[in-house]
Amino acid sequence: MSKALIFGHQNPDTDAIVAAKAFAYFQTQKGLDVEAVALGEPNMETNYVLNHFDEPAPRVIKTASNEVDHVMLVDHNEAQQSVSDLDKVTVTNVVDHHRIANFETKMPLYYRAEPVGCVSTILTEMFDEEKIEIPAKLAGLMLSAIISDTLLLQSPTTTDKDREAVRALAEIADIDVQSYGIEMLKAGTNLAAKTDKELIDGDAKSFDMAGKSVRIGQINTVDLNEVLDRQAGLEKEMNDEMAADGYDLFITLATNVLNSDSELIVAGEPKSVVETAFNTKLENNRASLPGVVSRKKQVVPPLTAAFEG
Amino acid sequence: MSKALIFGHQNPDTDAIVAAKAFAYFQTQKGLDVEAVALGEPNMETNYVLNHFDEPAPRVIKTASNEVDHVMLVDHNEAQQSVSDLDKVTVTNVVDHHRIANFETKMPLYYRAEPVGCVSTILTEMFDEEKIEIPAKLAGLMLSAIISDTLLLQSPTTTDKDREAVRALAEIADIDVQSYGIEMLKAGTNLAAKTDKELIDGDAKSFDMAGKSVRIGQINTVDLNEVLDRQAGLEKEMNDEMAADGYDLFITLATNVLNSDSELIVAGEPKSVVETAFNTKLENNRASLPGVVSRKKQVVPPLTAAFEG
Repeated sequence: MSKALIFGHQNPDTDAIVAAKAFAYFQTQKGLDVEAVALGEPNMETNYVLNHFDEPAPRVIKTASNEVDHVMLVDHNEAQQSVSDLDKVTVTNVVDHHRIANFETKMPLYYRAEPVGCVSTILTEMFDEEKIEIPAKLAGLMLSAIISDTLLLQSPTTTDKDREAVRALAEIADIDVQSYGIEMLKAGTNLAAKTDKELIDGDAKSFDMAGKSVRIGQINTVDLNEVLDRQAGLEKEMNDEMAADGYDLFITLATNVLNSDSELIVAGEPKSVVETAFNTKLENNRASLPGVVSRKKQVVPPLTAAFEG
Repeated sequence: MSKALIFGHQNPDTDAIVAAKAFAYFQTQKGLDVEAVALGEPNMETNYVLNHFDEPAPRVIKTASNEVDHVMLVDHNEAQQSVSDLDKVTVTNVVDHHRIANFETKMPLYYRAEPVGCVSTILTEMFDEEKIEIPAKLAGLMLSAIISDTLLLQSPTTTDKDREAVRALAEIADIDVQSYGIEMLKAGTNLAAKTDKELIDGDAKSFDMAGKSVRIGQINTVDLNEVLDRQAGLEKEMNDEMAADGYDLFITLATNVLNSDSELIVAGEPKSVVETAFNTKLENNRASLPGVVSRKKQVVPPLTAAFEG
């Protein structure tokens, strides 16, 4: 088979970048010709991770069909989160831990999804099943991805498999998980260095909900006021982006990664659906969501249900 | 977690019935409360297999949400091939070897697909990964499913993994694959015992292609003339069913399981798309397709491409 590109979602986070690299290593060991690429530049947290392990950032692509005729997706499956010309290439493999939606193939494929905290956890299992050894540097990268996705195993998305993978990877990489993890998470939340637009774009993803185009971003912080003090500027950027890109609703979730609370900032309509979804009242376009840290598990499902309800 | 139902597609074939039983055994060994059921009665081949191994037919259900709130799918994922109230239950697990289409979830799930000849092959791998032993009777059933789906490893859908699974399962079940397989395939093709309507309904499945509702059935035989001699009656039933159920196009594939040739019988429109898909001309609503035995690999993909082209 000719060369395949492997990539995670747009606005890549640490797992999107690392899982592509790990799956590329896996497929290379199995004799396939693949390259891990990315659909955007690494964020601050991922740069910290790549620097820490002396690993180069992946090449960024805008389109795939000019290079290859088949691709492998990690950490996503929904077309609107993927490469812009996904419909022009064949997806042969997916490794993911999200819901399946807006994804369709003409041919049978390898699809491996599990409801765990991080794709790198699934990949850790797959390396084990195929008895392929994980090199120490790759183990450090994969460990970082799990720490990132699960907020140091605190997120409600965390499963026993994530904890087991962290244990195994930390041993291979010889890393103290707590101290490294806190340094890494802090490195990702240097908000002062970012513009309002960078903050709302951060890792924002688009969702189709009952025919509405919904944009949901998440800003991790160690102090919610760092975000809330900039509400006016953030709202302006959200409204500008909605007008430019045709979103109906834009939700930014500010999450304190140390104590696991979040605050919503909402632009667009229907705001009433947001209030129904989270059983709350918006005040000044905001609402507190104590204990909410997972977009995938605690924001998208109730919002989807409220839109369809 | 409360009890889950596990089932294959409508018009169940041997793999749909056996894979449900095998996955139920797998999940039971992992401590889950599950029951294998079916969306229809076993066909003649499957009855032969169940009788051979003294295994009861599964309970047939019409709906799932009156019994459970979550289900596991095997050997299919497309909603129109599944239980009628799939939208009212949560799909927690899928094990399949088909394309992914018209399938969407609200929450992350277990999804295991591989482009191999039979779901029972994937399940054989999963038993091995989880180090769960396959009992001899179940191995015989799973072996039968692989023989059925791959036409005794002759279909182009057959992969090395199917061959390896057949080898391992035959050893556990202590069965001579060739002699048992030919008896089993012949048992499934006793066409004289079936009405025209039973023949076209057999294992027919519905597909959405570029907005058209396409019905595709397959009749296995050891003598194509057994089917072609009944063309007038088959066409009448296809046309009646299209009118009753709103299909645009109905294709029946008659396949000689011994020499791997097929003949198409086509009702409805657009017939020109069928001609484009298979690069042929229909004569008397028929066309020969030498070497074509797999609906999934040799019929659905070119037809989908022709509809979208």
